Amino acid sequence: MNRYLLNERDAFVREAAEGLEAAHPALVRVHADPLFVTRRAPVAGKVALVSGGGSGHEPLHTGMVGTGMLDAAVPGAVFTSPTALQVRDAVAAVDTGAGALLIVKNYTGDVLNFRIAADLLADRHRLETVVVDDDLATASTDEDGPGRRGTAAVLAVEKICGAAAEAGAPLGRVGALGREVAARSATLGLALEACTNPMTGRRSFDLRPDEVEFGVGIHGERGIGTRAAGSAAELVASLVRPLLGHLGLRRGDEVLAIVNGFGATHALELGVALREVRRVLAGDGVVPVRALAGSFVTSLDMRGLSVTLTALTGDLVDLWDAPVRTPALTW
Amino acid sequence: MNRYLLNERDAFVREAAEGLEAAHPALVRVHADPLFVTRRAPVAGKVALVSGGGSGHEPLHTGMVGTGMLDAAVPGAVFTSPTALQVRDAVAAVDTGAGALLIVKNYTGDVLNFRIAADLLADRHRLETVVVDDDLATASTDEDGPGRRGTAAVLAVEKICGAAAEAGAPLGRVGALGREVAARSATLGLALEACTNPMTGRRSFDLRPDEVEFGVGIHGERGIGTRAAGSAAELVASLVRPLLGHLGLRRGDEVLAIVNGFGATHALELGVALREVRRVLAGDGVVPVRALAGSFVTSLDMRGLSVTLTALTGDLVDLWDAPVRTPALTW
Repeated sequence: MNRYLLNERDAFVREAAEGLEAAHPALVRVHADPLFVTRRAPVAGKVALVSGGGSGHEPLHTGMVGTGMLDAAVPGAVFTSPTALQVRDAVAAVDTGAGALLIVKNYTGDVLNFRIAADLLADRHRLETVVVDDDLATASTDEDGPGRRGTAAVLAVEKICGAAAEAGAPLGRVGALGREVAARSATLGLALEACTNPMTGRRSFDLRPDEVEFGVGIHGERGIGTRAAGSAAELVASLVRPLLGHLGLRRGDEVLAIVNGFGATHALELGVALREVRRVLAGDGVVPVRALAGSFVTSLDMRGLSVTLTALTGDLVDLWDAPVRTPALTW
Repeated sequence: MNRYLLNERDAFVREAAEGLEAAHPALVRVHADPLFVTRRAPVAGKVALVSGGGSGHEPLHTGMVGTGMLDAAVPGAVFTSPTALQVRDAVAAVDTGAGALLIVKNYTGDVLNFRIAADLLADRHRLETVVVDDDLATASTDEDGPGRRGTAAVLAVEKICGAAAEAGAPLGRVGALGREVAARSATLGLALEACTNPMTGRRSFDLRPDEVEFGVGIHGERGIGTRAAGSAAELVASLVRPLLGHLGLRRGDEVLAIVNGFGATHALELGVALREVRRVLAGDGVVPVRALAGSFVTSLDMRGLSVTLTALTGDLVDLWDAPVRTPALTW
């Protein structure tokens, strides 16, 4: 059974945030009781970006706080939504008057608690919300269902909205951009091994050595099917082809491609996977004008990865390219 | 048994390098046959920095190629030294006349093959070599032995020498700085779970859930003792205290602290570990003026981490702080 290096389980998330500040004291600041992480100092007149969610996905979201990205990140307990009071206090700490954009991955608890926070803040803050729901594995025809999960496309939403806000765009524009990026994005993931929850010590499911779990999310849940293992080329193609179809990408279209490791996936594997993403795209004449490979939206120590494609336009490329300085993303 | 996402095993390292270039085409360029990675274009008049070693430690060294750090990285097969011909061709590709510094982790094969390469290059290139040997677990009184292993201190050597070279320092100065940083550094690591070799599919050793392996290296070898597991506070203190003693650090001394994940260690754990490093240092009045937590020098998918301390002086802080832009390290 896999084990974690930690002290008291209940202090895991807070202590990790303290370590993040220790590594990046010029970028981030930890607020305790309730717990949230902000930029070192609020930026007057700028639209504030606030995201958050359950922990276990680091570096998301706390590692995305800094210049050109988030103003605050609100970490819940492992795989547990942050409370509405955490979100409320984080927004109050970073909104200097230009309003705040709430970036929420589409999970029932997150959506609910960010909405309650928005209600609590409504009389003193102008707010917009972007819900990110990029995970094709959870596409459903059930109109009353929770809809698709939010996964690694949140990285593109946070980066692009962050650049627009940093450049002085007003709240309405930043919110519209976030919704546009979310709508232009799709993600699929697979696991070679499930994660072990540090709270329970249990692995969330078991796979045989000749199997992979296709369409996994980032909370230890099973995917949409257990499939035969294969080469990196085969497995990556099985992720990328449905994304191309869903986004309606055609020859000459330009995309951002994100290969995202789920936690215990090695940099060598992520490199090979990005190579394979490019090969599949090249076969269809789709152009990966920007690409990224790394462990950004993890699921504790799950082995495996997701691929996100975002259909880009010229202005989105410029916003993606704009300078960013956070603990996990800097250029 | 843990599995890797890859195609042909023999192509793993090359295909991963191709993925690195796909993610960072403005920074790095892959050369095939023999395989090495260089900055996008050589920089005329600058001392060239070349490092390398067996693969499986990514993002080291290929991820450290770029402005303000390495000019070339030479990856061997997994846990296998690069050949002398790889090193020779890499140096020839990036030395524009100011000479080259070879940064070598202290392993018999690496030292031998870099030395053969240096002999092959001696008539046309001015060369200096820095051997990094920071791993206290392998300190020995045997004068004829291989000496201490080189591990995560190589990151500090590459960063600081890279900044000096970028600023125009001559070869002799860059080499002297590298030796100074190496001498001022010490590292200790421990594992909660050994790595699985993708070539053999075998885990290199087994631990019980109530054990950790203390003093591990980065090639799957056992450490210097199997110890009782403990809290992050206890385990990190067991790493940091010998470093303080070895480096002779005293109240008021300033250090760079690097918490390095071995591959499958989660960002939450690395954050907690850095918090604990700071607490131990604070207890002795040693000041971590700079700190870093991340998976930089990995050992495939080993769970665990190392702590490196480097005693800093003012000029070393400035060189550490100088801008750097590589796939794995940017500020």
